[in-house]
Amino acid sequence: MDRNAPIGVFDSGIGGLTVAREIMRQFPEEKMVYFGDTARVPYGNKSKTSVIRFSEQIIRFLRTQEVKAIVVACNTASSYALEEVRKIEDIPIIGVINAGARTAAAVTRNRKIGIIGTAGTIGSGTYGNVLREMKPGVEVFGKACPLFVPLVEEGLLEDSVTDEIARRYLGVLKEKEIDTLVLGCTHYPLIRSTIARVMGSSVTLVDPAYETAVQLKTLLGSMETACDAGRELSAEEKYSFYVSDGAEQFTAFARTILPDVVKKTIQINIEEY
Amino acid sequence: MDRNAPIGVFDSGIGGLTVAREIMRQFPEEKMVYFGDTARVPYGNKSKTSVIRFSEQIIRFLRTQEVKAIVVACNTASSYALEEVRKIEDIPIIGVINAGARTAAAVTRNRKIGIIGTAGTIGSGTYGNVLREMKPGVEVFGKACPLFVPLVEEGLLEDSVTDEIARRYLGVLKEKEIDTLVLGCTHYPLIRSTIARVMGSSVTLVDPAYETAVQLKTLLGSMETACDAGRELSAEEKYSFYVSDGAEQFTAFARTILPDVVKKTIQINIEEY
Repeated sequence: MDRNAPIGVFDSGIGGLTVAREIMRQFPEEKMVYFGDTARVPYGNKSKTSVIRFSEQIIRFLRTQEVKAIVVACNTASSYALEEVRKIEDIPIIGVINAGARTAAAVTRNRKIGIIGTAGTIGSGTYGNVLREMKPGVEVFGKACPLFVPLVEEGLLEDSVTDEIARRYLGVLKEKEIDTLVLGCTHYPLIRSTIARVMGSSVTLVDPAYETAVQLKTLLGSMETACDAGRELSAEEKYSFYVSDGAEQFTAFARTILPDVVKKTIQINIEEY
Repeated sequence: MDRNAPIGVFDSGIGGLTVAREIMRQFPEEKMVYFGDTARVPYGNKSKTSVIRFSEQIIRFLRTQEVKAIVVACNTASSYALEEVRKIEDIPIIGVINAGARTAAAVTRNRKIGIIGTAGTIGSGTYGNVLREMKPGVEVFGKACPLFVPLVEEGLLEDSVTDEIARRYLGVLKEKEIDTLVLGCTHYPLIRSTIARVMGSSVTLVDPAYETAVQLKTLLGSMETACDAGRELSAEEKYSFYVSDGAEQFTAFARTILPDVVKKTIQINIEEY
């Protein structure tokens, strides 16, 4: 395996850029290929079969870019597809779920953990399964929050409507007296302050992006595949961005999350992979 | 052309069922094949290129079902793709835009017409172009309402949050003193009463679904392709439903719009067409 090969990162769209940003921060020397499936976004209400097929196509594309490892930055794809794609691929593939669950298991004191995410992520029960395996006796309460992504994409980050919807979604989790809440969708950290206000200061919010990068570090270290060449490269040389739709729109948005990093985005037809 | 062949109807997902319902009501004798692109829904924020490609794939699928005419029940696909697909197909294809525009042009008194729809429908300017051609001197004001579809899909049809969002979106159209408002997205008739309340009784709301069916009647009559065999058939024999994802989920929802009509939905891989 070429230690100087890039890391592949993919998401249903733009949300995974928060995970990409965390990886760039923790591994300034690594190269990265990011793919956002903007033609088929969102994944949150699609079936398991479709999300697995989409993930397989994306991994086939990323392999043409000769990546040395893949990060599934999308919670829905991690919930539904991670196990499937690991069976057929011979490079390491990690998802955001394990990382998020590990932090939640470490920080909870009363063993009552809430998970918020898309209908797919919550319906799959994957966070609960992983958490109960990591920490027997833990109680896990999931709540799907389908309006959070459209509210974020409409820019209502600090808004009375977002407050009202958050109160409705999160009320049931407050009643369960959870002390830890996993932000199980890459869009949710963008309304972290609203969620924190509604949940109150006694609840710890967990963002899987940070922990995913930590997990990747352990993985690359143990495989002795950490890159040693990237330091001298410019952002343009180190990072490539691909989407299945709307390259310009993606570039414009990506620059708000990753200024000076996203120079150009290339659109491909992912259905051909 | 076989006059007893079915009519093809397609949409990005479930919204087009309101158009299908209107066609079934006005043409009880016609057969129909409906396709909902639930694997790639929504179209509203996708690029023109992608929406054209999706529409071409769907039309290739509908042609395998030997349809005699096609109704593009999705406003975004009608805005972006109708002209393109008409160039390459030899059967009649009609969209919802022309029908909606015709009614709006007929009912406006002050020649100030509002259009609400997805970012794609509004950004394309298609309604405005068609309206100005039909009725020179008309003033057209478009407003994209991206949260309406997720609010409808979350079931918030009569809700204070939907009221608040509607007031924000529609305020700018009220200021323009429009007297006619086109519901330029097939989901919007489901929150018609909220929109009516916000706009007030002086504004006429136009739902293109009804007028699309009227236009189809004229078309089939003029081509002498009206069906004469469907009267004796059961709903199951007359109507077929196909989707690109989640057949069971679609069937359950479709039954709320079309009780006793949707017996079974078949999932296909639309990317193969």
